[in-house]
Amino acid sequence: MIIKPDFNDIIASYGRIKRYIHHTPVFTSQKLNDLFSAKLYFKCENFQKVGAFKTRGALNAILQLSPEQLINGVATHSSGNFAQALAYSANILGTNATVIMPNSAPKVKVDAVRSYGAEIIFCEPTLQAREKTLEQFINSSGAEFIHPYNDYNVIAGQGTTALEFLIDYPDLDIIIAPIGGGGLISGTAIATKGSNPKIKIIAAEPKGADDAFRSKKAGYIIPSVNPKTIADGLLTSLGDKTFPIVNTLVDDIFTVQDESIITAMKLIFSRMKLLVEPSAAVPLAAILEYQNIFIEKKVGIILSGGNIDLDKLSKFFS
Amino acid sequence: MIIKPDFNDIIASYGRIKRYIHHTPVFTSQKLNDLFSAKLYFKCENFQKVGAFKTRGALNAILQLSPEQLINGVATHSSGNFAQALAYSANILGTNATVIMPNSAPKVKVDAVRSYGAEIIFCEPTLQAREKTLEQFINSSGAEFIHPYNDYNVIAGQGTTALEFLIDYPDLDIIIAPIGGGGLISGTAIATKGSNPKIKIIAAEPKGADDAFRSKKAGYIIPSVNPKTIADGLLTSLGDKTFPIVNTLVDDIFTVQDESIITAMKLIFSRMKLLVEPSAAVPLAAILEYQNIFIEKKVGIILSGGNIDLDKLSKFFS
Repeated sequence: MIIKPDFNDIIASYGRIKRYIHHTPVFTSQKLNDLFSAKLYFKCENFQKVGAFKTRGALNAILQLSPEQLINGVATHSSGNFAQALAYSANILGTNATVIMPNSAPKVKVDAVRSYGAEIIFCEPTLQAREKTLEQFINSSGAEFIHPYNDYNVIAGQGTTALEFLIDYPDLDIIIAPIGGGGLISGTAIATKGSNPKIKIIAAEPKGADDAFRSKKAGYIIPSVNPKTIADGLLTSLGDKTFPIVNTLVDDIFTVQDESIITAMKLIFSRMKLLVEPSAAVPLAAILEYQNIFIEKKVGIILSGGNIDLDKLSKFFS
Repeated sequence: MIIKPDFNDIIASYGRIKRYIHHTPVFTSQKLNDLFSAKLYFKCENFQKVGAFKTRGALNAILQLSPEQLINGVATHSSGNFAQALAYSANILGTNATVIMPNSAPKVKVDAVRSYGAEIIFCEPTLQAREKTLEQFINSSGAEFIHPYNDYNVIAGQGTTALEFLIDYPDLDIIIAPIGGGGLISGTAIATKGSNPKIKIIAAEPKGADDAFRSKKAGYIIPSVNPKTIADGLLTSLGDKTFPIVNTLVDDIFTVQDESIITAMKLIFSRMKLLVEPSAAVPLAAILEYQNIFIEKKVGIILSGGNIDLDKLSKFFS
């Protein structure tokens, strides 16, 4: 089958967005390498603009809109990092962003999106309410809808994380990234297999939101029903554009317990002095749970973001 | 008066230690620059070996001991980062480190020191008990005592932080660092004034442990009595070797409230995604409290360390 987007789309995306984003650093830790008997390379997207890789995809999507399309602004539904990323990107291009958010969204997220100048429309916290509210808004405003992950341009943008990673560290054995809706892992898989098909791609998923694991096993999409995990960026299910990529190019999906995610966060905090959100610790949690797979390997880990609610830290570390 | 150590001692120290330490990165944040109307440059010693600048001084002191002196090992009194730094340094040189620690020291600190292979001798948490225990140990073991800050070699080693900072960012207007016993700020002042006397040196001190502020004002050492601050790395008082340097080369000492330290930590966590200990947030707390001084200036900030007890985070952020 033909995978969309392709490797060239990711390279083109990188050229398009790179002046607006950080070339994020890669960190290592001797202590963690000793602990896992592996060489771990952490791509720090927590240092990316708005604190997460999502800026790459949002920018890549917006930058491909025509001036006519930009006139009425852009819109998305998200209560997470993509909302901030779209708000930031719209601001750069001088257009408006509107975000449909459940009225249950935490104040810290709402404030963050507003701080980048976006409008927020609240809806009841159900899928139906969200879709109805979005449809009404798009119809009345003429804004361009950009899906947080089930969008070829967004996927290609997220793929620039791995492209940049491989420019700096071309000889990794494995790249591991978290999986939620599948935008990051899809872009990662395309970029990686395109530059070196020998590198293994592993997706790390919370057990409490394991739709990707079950979908890949079944060969068709099985969405999560009432997913539950502390990795709140990974509650979404695969879409019809990300599923075929995950199904074809991702070598393995490892599911992890929330306890492992907390242990992994503690290791990243205490050993690396990096602040990451729970979703970003899911790959290291997978390395904890499946340690044998990674022994003696050079493992690239995507630290996807650092937007954690500081008030919640006590919940994880007490 | 002649200041000891001098600029050349710091350059020589850098040559001596640099193969064992990290050349730590300097981070910036557009959001913080906007917030303070200044250009802030953060020297990330939280990423240094053992998570703090102290490794520089400990290594510099140990590397100047003769093989004969090294035979019986080294010893210090510290319940903080210097204990870990000396343990790490002794380990590199294949000698033993012994640390005199109050029996009230938190388990996380004890474990950290032991993890680098040092021996610990516990004593009652009083100055007298500490000095007596240390004296007895030195007499019986023949170990070399290395003071955590009141030592010319330690001061010169700590000064390599600023030297490295100025190699990367030579045109700063101000360098600000925390002050406790004065080892870091003394080395910082000598390195900075030696390379560019126009750069202003500011020491940031918690109000609850403001012996340096009061000592500089009086012109003689006034030690803290029962100091109290969340910046637990800054409870110590100036020594007879650090006081003359602080008195002569430090342009200003700004004291800050613990509330400002917490606010500064929150900014560093949430905006920069860096994990720092309370002491490391004291300079930014000073910028918060004395904002006018820093407007439009290029300010170098030494983030001194990142060794925070994760269980305590809830105390700061709830």
